[in-house]
Amino acid sequence: MSKPLILVTNDDGILAPGLKALVGVASRFGEVVVVAPDSPQSGQGHAITLESPLRLRKVHFDDIDAYECSGTPVDCVKLAKNVLLKDRTIDLCLSGINHGANSSINVIYSGTMSAAMEASLEGVNSIGFSLLDYNFDADFTAATSIAETIVEQVLVNGLPPCKLLNVNIPSLPATEIKGMRVCRQGNGSWIEDFQEGLDPRGEKYYWLTGRFVNKDHGEDTDIWALANGYVSIVPTGFDLTVHGAIPSLKYLQESAFQKIMYK
Amino acid sequence: MSKPLILVTNDDGILAPGLKALVGVASRFGEVVVVAPDSPQSGQGHAITLESPLRLRKVHFDDIDAYECSGTPVDCVKLAKNVLLKDRTIDLCLSGINHGANSSINVIYSGTMSAAMEASLEGVNSIGFSLLDYNFDADFTAATSIAETIVEQVLVNGLPPCKLLNVNIPSLPATEIKGMRVCRQGNGSWIEDFQEGLDPRGEKYYWLTGRFVNKDHGEDTDIWALANGYVSIVPTGFDLTVHGAIPSLKYLQESAFQKIMYK
Repeated sequence: MSKPLILVTNDDGILAPGLKALVGVASRFGEVVVVAPDSPQSGQGHAITLESPLRLRKVHFDDIDAYECSGTPVDCVKLAKNVLLKDRTIDLCLSGINHGANSSINVIYSGTMSAAMEASLEGVNSIGFSLLDYNFDADFTAATSIAETIVEQVLVNGLPPCKLLNVNIPSLPATEIKGMRVCRQGNGSWIEDFQEGLDPRGEKYYWLTGRFVNKDHGEDTDIWALANGYVSIVPTGFDLTVHGAIPSLKYLQESAFQKIMYK
Repeated sequence: MSKPLILVTNDDGILAPGLKALVGVASRFGEVVVVAPDSPQSGQGHAITLESPLRLRKVHFDDIDAYECSGTPVDCVKLAKNVLLKDRTIDLCLSGINHGANSSINVIYSGTMSAAMEASLEGVNSIGFSLLDYNFDADFTAATSIAETIVEQVLVNGLPPCKLLNVNIPSLPATEIKGMRVCRQGNGSWIEDFQEGLDPRGEKYYWLTGRFVNKDHGEDTDIWALANGYVSIVPTGFDLTVHGAIPSLKYLQESAFQKIMYK
């Protein structure tokens, strides 16, 4: 059997230590191609570049086939899938290891998870990894070992019935991590407290800052797992429909129809 | 009863005709505040601006309280909620009317829907409106009438048990629109066909282009509704968990745990 083809990307950029750690993991299992942003892209969500052209440049990255891209994390995956690896089948896409959490609602702001989601949309099994440590010199030892374990399992067993995992890892030594929890996305949101200031020309600016508020006290959430020393694994999709709300909104369909027709 | 406070935003920017149409609708029902990007932000998804400061400038917009913002659509909503309207309660957030479809998977790339989703995350009932016509001079007559009908209903009845609607409107005269369908997000994706070229300095570039592929032949989807002359209304949320996948992935939790502990 030929080695699996593994695409590795991230949102912290081609120079991030977390990317290097994940490439190390991927190299143990398959042929690796790296396409990562040429600059940090945290908080880019599922943004794509429509109004300007993209650049793709080959870079030195140990002995790995690696490219930096001028666009967003999602752009990286689109270019990898549709240009660089157009005639091949990508067996797995790994994104990260992100410097900082992507649990709970952070999944929708996260470039790391959006890159992995884009690959999953195109039919590729994908995993986003994040370590709960924002520091450039964070210790990826435990995270690397955990990523290796999960990648091995997913390569053997696949990912039915979903194509994407959101894996978050507490910032603890391996011996203090209690295990893993397959769980749901916890409900929370951010309360913003914009920092206001004056620029050197005396013009007012606002700079985003905020704090996360947990609104979910279930013990089956990623928030709970991480707070209790577990790795969280959330099977993640892209169907945003609130299916349970469809019946109670049907009234809208009738009344609105009448209004339009007879006004 | 005091008039409801309605925040209006979009992703096509403060000058887009679709925004003007939606402000017209909102003005019939409440006090309106507009915060919209100062430039087009299509495809920005749920991107937020972390690495640079944001600007907010008051602009002339008929007799409406209106601001242009230097950031993404989600930044606009965060600034509106947490700076401009910090001490007030926003009763409804309207986003659009977008020039172009945001049905099916487009919801995750869409700045229009991400802005509305951000407001819903912060507890505000929200509706994103999109017209299936990309032209600057698209005819918003039917779309305006439909938006008015839906806004009226939502102000009266609220939106339980969800807080966000994704409304897409076919590009047809009002008399040819068959009605409305409350439906689920159809499954589809984009096949990209990057245009490759050389810039004036002879350097290679890639420019994103693609075509949408419908993978869903259900008659209960937004794709079906729009193709058959109906307005589509999808109740939309932000829980990306694939709940049905949790039980079958539990094996991962056990085996991975063992591996880590005993390796």
